[in-house]
Amino acid sequence: MKRSEFIAAQERARNMLKEANIVITEKESAELEIADFGLGRLESEGLEIVTYVNNDRYCGKEMALFPYQTCPEHKHPPVNGRPGKQETFRCRKGEVYLYVSGEPAATPKAKIPSEFYTVFHETILKPGEQYTLPPETLHWFQAGPEGAIVSEFSSPSVDEADIFTDPNVKRIPIIED
Amino acid sequence: MKRSEFIAAQERARNMLKEANIVITEKESAELEIADFGLGRLESEGLEIVTYVNNDRYCGKEMALFPYQTCPEHKHPPVNGRPGKQETFRCRKGEVYLYVSGEPAATPKAKIPSEFYTVFHETILKPGEQYTLPPETLHWFQAGPEGAIVSEFSSPSVDEADIFTDPNVKRIPIIED
Repeated sequence: MKRSEFIAAQERARNMLKEANIVITEKESAELEIADFGLGRLESEGLEIVTYVNNDRYCGKEMALFPYQTCPEHKHPPVNGRPGKQETFRCRKGEVYLYVSGEPAATPKAKIPSEFYTVFHETILKPGEQYTLPPETLHWFQAGPEGAIVSEFSSPSVDEADIFTDPNVKRIPIIED
Repeated sequence: MKRSEFIAAQERARNMLKEANIVITEKESAELEIADFGLGRLESEGLEIVTYVNNDRYCGKEMALFPYQTCPEHKHPPVNGRPGKQETFRCRKGEVYLYVSGEPAATPKAKIPSEFYTVFHETILKPGEQYTLPPETLHWFQAGPEGAIVSEFSSPSVDEADIFTDPNVKRIPIIED
């Protein structure tokens, strides 16, 4: 990801949070995470994240997704003998299309970003609605046409352990000048 | 607590959440918890709570506090061999005065509600600011003049195990017709 793209994405995410009346500190604003998953197409596959807290017992995050932006398909494996990450996504603004294994949607609401998507059982989350994923659930999600703000409540987050379906994913981003 | 007081408090908390642009479902709205801690003075000691999720790994809540309303002093003991609840309070709206043990504030911002308050080391939380309490930390908190909305991220919540300084507290409320 180019530094200019990184900076523009941070600014866009800050504005989305502001429009949702979500206040973050200056430090959180400066450290706002832009995940392009090493795929180089942030608009379609990416995620903007503020991690409020991530300790050895729980984790809380706020995520901003641009219109039709997708968090690529992945699962959370057991780490250091502890069960995989369990997480609850709560839609705060916009609309989210969430996919797990099971009966596939006949006409998915999401635009499928690549061939590395394999589960298509659809749940649509509107503001105030939420969904809890058991550990090791293969899943992906995409924002609707207005983008989305999603709160995540979870067990501890160990992003570098995540297993993505797309072998090209690099979870920890590389910023180029 | 009288049923009429309970219903009025629910409606007031719903309006506060709405003003903060926080959307809850109809079910969450109907089940909005009013905790008067059995003290019968909800305005000064009480809490309005929406529990989004509380499973065996983590918990997420939204709390509304009326102006100068106080969550009474308490701590979270170990339960079933697990360490006491650890929690992060994040102020979303208004102002929160949080107290733990340590050097007491010379002139606390909070109105001290009764003689059953013993820790006075003050932290003031404005929107976007947060504080994480280690397990078994004696603490209490009060909203400022405009009331407050506080998100709580934590390990699992076992409210009935909480230990309050005030021996008159009954954590699970009794509603009278």
